[in-house]
Amino acid sequence: MNLMLFHASELQPDHTVRLTATDRRAEHVTQVLGSQPGDQLKAGIINGLTGTALLQTITADSLLFFVRVDTEPPPALDLTLILALPRPKMMRRIVQCVASMGVKDVIFINSSKVEKSYWQTPWLSAESLYEQSLLGLEQAIDTRLPEIRQFKLFKPFAEDHLPQICAGKNAWFAHPGSTAGVPEISARSILAIGPEGGFTAYESNKMESAGMQGFQFGKRILRMETAIPALLGRLFF
Amino acid sequence: MNLMLFHASELQPDHTVRLTATDRRAEHVTQVLGSQPGDQLKAGIINGLTGTALLQTITADSLLFFVRVDTEPPPALDLTLILALPRPKMMRRIVQCVASMGVKDVIFINSSKVEKSYWQTPWLSAESLYEQSLLGLEQAIDTRLPEIRQFKLFKPFAEDHLPQICAGKNAWFAHPGSTAGVPEISARSILAIGPEGGFTAYESNKMESAGMQGFQFGKRILRMETAIPALLGRLFF
Repeated sequence: MNLMLFHASELQPDHTVRLTATDRRAEHVTQVLGSQPGDQLKAGIINGLTGTALLQTITADSLLFFVRVDTEPPPALDLTLILALPRPKMMRRIVQCVASMGVKDVIFINSSKVEKSYWQTPWLSAESLYEQSLLGLEQAIDTRLPEIRQFKLFKPFAEDHLPQICAGKNAWFAHPGSTAGVPEISARSILAIGPEGGFTAYESNKMESAGMQGFQFGKRILRMETAIPALLGRLFF
Repeated sequence: MNLMLFHASELQPDHTVRLTATDRRAEHVTQVLGSQPGDQLKAGIINGLTGTALLQTITADSLLFFVRVDTEPPPALDLTLILALPRPKMMRRIVQCVASMGVKDVIFINSSKVEKSYWQTPWLSAESLYEQSLLGLEQAIDTRLPEIRQFKLFKPFAEDHLPQICAGKNAWFAHPGSTAGVPEISARSILAIGPEGGFTAYESNKMESAGMQGFQFGKRILRMETAIPALLGRLFF
């Protein structure tokens, strides 16, 4: 936790925040960081500014912080990231990864090579996505939560939503069968990354019809958890 | 497993390979892929060429393949990657990641912010590093194993080894405190990535004395497992 994130509702008019001693953040401060009264920590308000939290008092029941926030969080990526639903085992790590890299608009979609059972994972619950997003923000000293949407059916997504999502933007999908190389991507982009086996020809055609262009990202087949940061690093950093 | 890797010693003069039924690769072929005699799989020889393995027969005890290899594996990255030793929990994933991305020269080093206990992990054993490297190669349809070295003491590494490693090459280290932006890296490079908390000033100075230059990779603090593929993607893909 490189940043302690508070809810706006936790911040009192006198600029203090009181956390119960059993709160995850309070436990991190006392047990992992070993902070003492007088210590200053990086802090931020969820979807707001960043600054500092001065640890004022520690009691058996609670921790009291004096909070000052005045700094904008780091710039977000101007990007909608469309991901074929990953294996459940990787969901939490991938949500943390994209949140830490500054993606603010994530769409999980179905694809022929996504196993149906993946959609049953508890890691897709609103609570879990929220928690993992917070962990990613805490890591990267960011405050702005990503919006995460889910489309369980590919065809209605591609036909009824994707054209509007892509309108007026640079819209690309990574596809092993494509002959185009890695694009130069500027602002207002859409990037889709398929499952490890790639999108099917049917899916590629549907995405092209919606206004997207395919490109090939090297010759190597990478796991989604590697391909996502590698592509984001290549295109946006 | 996108590629079945054989040891050169397993390949018989008549171009066949026989795997016992309990071999990890054989179990993958029968239980995960559900392959039948007549099916053709991608195959390669460790540190050699890639091609195909035709599954000829399945018996209770073994699988027999007819193997033809004639294609070079994908190009390697012309890079020495120096990594502060990651948390043990991430070791296997990081070795797989860098092997899948084509890194052939990896050096794990100590750093002030690496916990001493990390060096005790069984995932640093030669057997484990070999196994995880193979998994990364199988993923990326590559055959050439990375060389992985370990230096448990920073000072002797930086003073006695690093200058020779860097000689005549573009040598960079990612460092949050640096003012230089992401470099344009061409061939024959050295790239060092520190622990999450960054290298210390002492360590940065030592690396600069050895011929390296620091640079900052964005404003976000990324986990090592995110920073590594993001940086490799940014610089080499």
